[in-house]
Amino acid sequence: MTHAGSSYFCRAALLDGTFRGRVRVLVADGVITAISADEDPDPTDVELDTVVPGFGNAHSHAFHRRLRGRTHADGGDFWQWRERMYAEAADLDPDRYHELAETVFTEMRDAGYTAVGEFHYVHHSEGGEAYADHAMELALAAAAESVGIRLVLLDACYLRGGIGQPLSARQRRFGDGDVQRWLERWHALRDALRSVGGGLVTVGAAIHSVRAVSRDDLTAISAGLPPEVPLHAHISEQRAENDACFAAYGLTPVGLLAEHGLISPRFSAVHATHLTEGDIRQLGTAGATVVMCPTTEADLGDGIGPAPELLEAGARLAIGSDQHVVLDPLEELTRLEYDQRLRSERRGVFTPEVLWRAGTVEGYRALGLVDDQRSPGLRVGNPFDAVELDAASPRTAGAEAIQLPVVARSADIRATIVAGRLTRPTSAGR
Amino acid sequence: MTHAGSSYFCRAALLDGTFRGRVRVLVADGVITAISADEDPDPTDVELDTVVPGFGNAHSHAFHRRLRGRTHADGGDFWQWRERMYAEAADLDPDRYHELAETVFTEMRDAGYTAVGEFHYVHHSEGGEAYADHAMELALAAAAESVGIRLVLLDACYLRGGIGQPLSARQRRFGDGDVQRWLERWHALRDALRSVGGGLVTVGAAIHSVRAVSRDDLTAISAGLPPEVPLHAHISEQRAENDACFAAYGLTPVGLLAEHGLISPRFSAVHATHLTEGDIRQLGTAGATVVMCPTTEADLGDGIGPAPELLEAGARLAIGSDQHVVLDPLEELTRLEYDQRLRSERRGVFTPEVLWRAGTVEGYRALGLVDDQRSPGLRVGNPFDAVELDAASPRTAGAEAIQLPVVARSADIRATIVAGRLTRPTSAGR
Repeated sequence: MTHAGSSYFCRAALLDGTFRGRVRVLVADGVITAISADEDPDPTDVELDTVVPGFGNAHSHAFHRRLRGRTHADGGDFWQWRERMYAEAADLDPDRYHELAETVFTEMRDAGYTAVGEFHYVHHSEGGEAYADHAMELALAAAAESVGIRLVLLDACYLRGGIGQPLSARQRRFGDGDVQRWLERWHALRDALRSVGGGLVTVGAAIHSVRAVSRDDLTAISAGLPPEVPLHAHISEQRAENDACFAAYGLTPVGLLAEHGLISPRFSAVHATHLTEGDIRQLGTAGATVVMCPTTEADLGDGIGPAPELLEAGARLAIGSDQHVVLDPLEELTRLEYDQRLRSERRGVFTPEVLWRAGTVEGYRALGLVDDQRSPGLRVGNPFDAVELDAASPRTAGAEAIQLPVVARSADIRATIVAGRLTRPTSAGR
Repeated sequence: MTHAGSSYFCRAALLDGTFRGRVRVLVADGVITAISADEDPDPTDVELDTVVPGFGNAHSHAFHRRLRGRTHADGGDFWQWRERMYAEAADLDPDRYHELAETVFTEMRDAGYTAVGEFHYVHHSEGGEAYADHAMELALAAAAESVGIRLVLLDACYLRGGIGQPLSARQRRFGDGDVQRWLERWHALRDALRSVGGGLVTVGAAIHSVRAVSRDDLTAISAGLPPEVPLHAHISEQRAENDACFAAYGLTPVGLLAEHGLISPRFSAVHATHLTEGDIRQLGTAGATVVMCPTTEADLGDGIGPAPELLEAGARLAIGSDQHVVLDPLEELTRLEYDQRLRSERRGVFTPEVLWRAGTVEGYRALGLVDDQRSPGLRVGNPFDAVELDAASPRTAGAEAIQLPVVARSADIRATIVAGRLTRPTSAGR
């Protein structure tokens, strides 16, 4: 791990959606204090190639990494895959969770993600007992701190195994018993994490899905969660979820959350694959974020969600690596664009600028890492979270920098910078 | 470039569709003379990690590489992209073509492709005159020889700009004037290339598409082309092609070629995106190959072709990188599988064994590089064409070897071996 100098000279950098040449960046205490283009380098500058804001991974389940390359020979569908995933969850304890998260967060950082939203529900023991002192959450926080990646711990409320059903034996460790106990643990967790993580760790909230809570639980969450906290939920990933929700409530998942005032700018809908026109309108009008996880949605056979319609309606788009079958923000962005081309039989569905935003600053926004007073990205006053890309690799040579999201890949990441600390990928075989 | 030793010890190798451990390979004059598993290494062996048959790139247009990362901001569709592509074709001459092909073939080899079928139609000067002495074709052959990649030059018959239309000004350099002149040049080319290319270059044939020839031309091609020569054609990539073909002939493109006896085991249909059930049956019954180009078909908004139905009907599946927006056989295979998951909302559409075959030996078969007497792949009597994969990279660690097609990427290629000559990727920034 290399500690960053306090000044950098970038051959090119993405400033406010445009690539500028010869960009100097001055950094103090991890925060950008000056940044300008068309400069000359100072001899003490750290020289970098093509620099863009750090990629934001707005949806992660760290422990799913264990399934990579192990579930592809079996056919089946999402629900059969879920059984395999539950078997991995059963095996976790604080030590193993810490070790696994350290590995996955390292791979993530080396792939160019500077921040991760960990959608966390393995918070109890296998028997369903709470761990003392938030042991599982502290294991994740310690892993993020040691790796040097920004972590937003999205602690999930997960109380039911399906609408009107108790948790199954394998799901028991995901649950707090009732919604008040989840809210109490959530507030205590937020207090406990204020003093750890070296400034890199914050707490957000999640509702696992409409399958995992009752209508009354939603009322309690709406009342009990501070309004500034980012709130994420899996939404309409599979058609069966929509069918069950509609059968129980006469509403779509988005409609059910909207009924409780939960669709707002602080809300992130993860996946949002099978939406109605009304859902799209509701998410758009609210200015909510939709976190697309293109490699996971392909892997699990979810389908191709209506991302351009959501953007058009006013929603924001971010990305997540979710189950980590792929850890590559650029491959996610390529799929985000290309799957829409397959759906529409048109090219250039999203502008390159939209793709850059989806990969970088919108993830930060979805995780509550930027406040409304300040634009995100590479500018004075923001933490220096960035990645250096090789714009002359076999993949990237000849491409216009603005079009890199569809041609670069994680192997082109030369360095990741989080809060001014620069790390070069060291893993063998990259 | 490293010259290969005559013996190798592989930690694991894919033999007849199964990974075996501790595999020793003996090679003489580029051909495998002995291969067996569960062996001990000899001190003189070259040690390799995970070894699989070389990837076969059954569809390439080398010069399209110039468009990578340059056409994504414009929206539009396939036909608008084609205008950009024609502008690149206009700029080629034998020297520039050679230089470009050397770069692209190097990237291809470093990405793990050991053989490429170059679907070649820029064979005349801008004014439509033939070059002396097959200058363009010899430029491609020389590039392949110097890079050390197996090349099958699929020289294309391209006589019309659309059904019943002459070539446009920009298409003029693709044409021979009439079908007899194309056949004469094709036979002369085959003779001319027998003595060049260092044993790596052979000649196949192509019909650009049903847009590019008349019904009478197809009769002449069927009569004039030796029956053992591999024959490729773009088939039903875009709906407009199908519509025009049906309007003119009352037949689909597959139906039109079948009418002339051209759908056979030596035939490869490139793309085959928009097929009827009858087309699928015809390609399957004939045992033809379908060359899917998943990253190109996504990039150009072609759509997702019926690959599982084709396989079920008896067709073979191979892959091609086509326009080279991506040069990564493993990413092609991931897309081949994942796009079908998006289409069907099911997982594991193809078995891993089918994916390996599509990536490796079926491409060789489509290019006429294996004869019917011998199974392709890593076995005695076959040329030693193989790649070494890193099975412990951040992408591949933890995966079962057989499932690597959906998790590995070209950055995991450690070495490419063509006819026993081993090359390690040397390009900066891989």
